[in-house]
Parts: sequence; structure tokens; C-alpha cells
Amino acid sequence: MRLHHVGIAVADLEAAKARWALLGYREVARGRVEAQGVEVAMLKGEAGALLELLAPLGPETPVGRFLKKRGEGQHHLAFAVPELEHRLRALKAAGVPLIDETPRPGFGGHRVAFLHPRAFGGVLVELVEE
Amino acid sequence: MRLHHVGIAVADLEAAKARWALLGYREVARGRVEAQGVEVAMLKGEAGALLELLAPLGPETPVGRFLKKRGEGQHHLAFAVPELEHRLRALKAAGVPLIDETPRPGFGGHRVAFLHPRAFGGVLVELVEE
Repeated sequence: MRLHHVGIAVADLEAAKARWALLGYREVARGRVEAQGVEVAMLKGEAGALLELLAPLGPETPVGRFLKKRGEGQHHLAFAVPELEHRLRALKAAGVPLIDETPRPGFGGHRVAFLHPRAFGGVLVELVEE
Repeated sequence: MRLHHVGIAVADLEAAKARWALLGYREVARGRVEAQGVEVAMLKGEAGALLELLAPLGPETPVGRFLKKRGEGQHHLAFAVPELEHRLRALKAAGVPLIDETPRPGFGGHRVAFLHPRAFGGVLVELVEE
């Protein structure tokens, strides 16, 4: 696997984009994932993993609650995998607690699934099928 | 710039390594940064950004205090830059608050510098000279 993106919870997408532009990161995709209650701006640097800015569509969404509890900051790590269902079965068999037992639609048309942060020392892990 | 590694604060390096091995990440370097009070295990996947596991050498170190306050989890994002001093001057001129005005020794013989998390929406940013 390789790191696909780092998810970052933000209160204001435009303000956050201006900050990351200081390090050369520019928006390459933008959109809403209504099922997750977020507006997303995907930022790209010269190479490598993307930064996924996540702004909540309301206070009672997962990212809205995250911001209320912890404030802005790193939200999750996403890893690219070729065969998501196969990998989910293997992780479950290894005793990893899954948030999503089956893939769900994520940003940019990818199928994704989240693993429970208690399996990864407090890090919320997303798998993105590629 | 590109993402060089994600720093993750952990209580126990060996337990953490076992978790990330489930996603195919293996230790490629190991050592102490005494000046920062941490033992470091650098993990690599198939490609892309590394994971830097950070275990405190004692409770009154930066990572020790982080663990007490927030628990295990993502600690910082590190970006590779070619000319660190040049970049620090440019960021300071742009109004970014720096933790390190000049480079300091980091893990693996790299020179590094940290930017203040209030400049990046709660994300502690490290620059690594490469």
C-alpha cells in the first residue's frame, strides 16, 4: 500500500486552501460527499500524497462533531489499495475492527472503507480503491 | 514540495509497528533524536510518504506531553524541501510563524525545521531538507 492522502478537518475551505498554497499545494478537485456530510477540496503538491481538506456541511456531521471536540487538524490517513473487498476480508480475519464492512462511495468516484482508529493507535484509517 | 512523512505519536513502538505491518508498512530505519526526546521508527510502504512512529523517551518530552494531553495519534506532517533556509526565510516573510528560525538536526541526518500549527489550522508542519 501507499499513502493516498491525508484528511484534514477545517472550518473554512478557502482559508485553509490559502494556508496550504504557502507550501505549494493547489486544488485539483472539489466536491461534496453528501453521505458523509462534507465538502472536499483535494490539494496536490509537486508529487506524492494529496491533502484532502474536509469542511463539514453542518455541526451534526462526523467532521462537524470532530471540529467541535478537537478543533481543526489532521483527521485521517488514506491508503490506496487495488482490491478493496479482498483487503477488508483479510484485515477482518486478522482481527482489525472495521467501520465499513463493505465499500461505500467516497470522493472522486472511488470506493472507500474506514477502519476503526482503535486498531491503529488513534489514527482513523481509510482505504481507497484504485 | 511533497509529503515526506506523517509523524505518529505512539506509546509503544513495537506494538505500533505490528499494527502498521497489517497495511504492509515495514521498518526501514530506527534511532533516537535525543534533542527531541524521542525514539523513532521510520516505516515504508510500497511507495510514497513514510510513517514516522514517535515514542517519547520520558513523560516530560514534547511527545510525552502530547500523549498525556491527546493520546496516541497523528502528530505532524513533514514536507521535503531542497533549500531549507531559503524556504524558512520566504515563509517568515509571508507571515508564517516559525517554531525553528534556523534548521536543527532531525532524524536520519536531515536538517529540519518546524512551523507553528496555528499557521496551518492546527497541523504541526515539519520541513525536511533533501
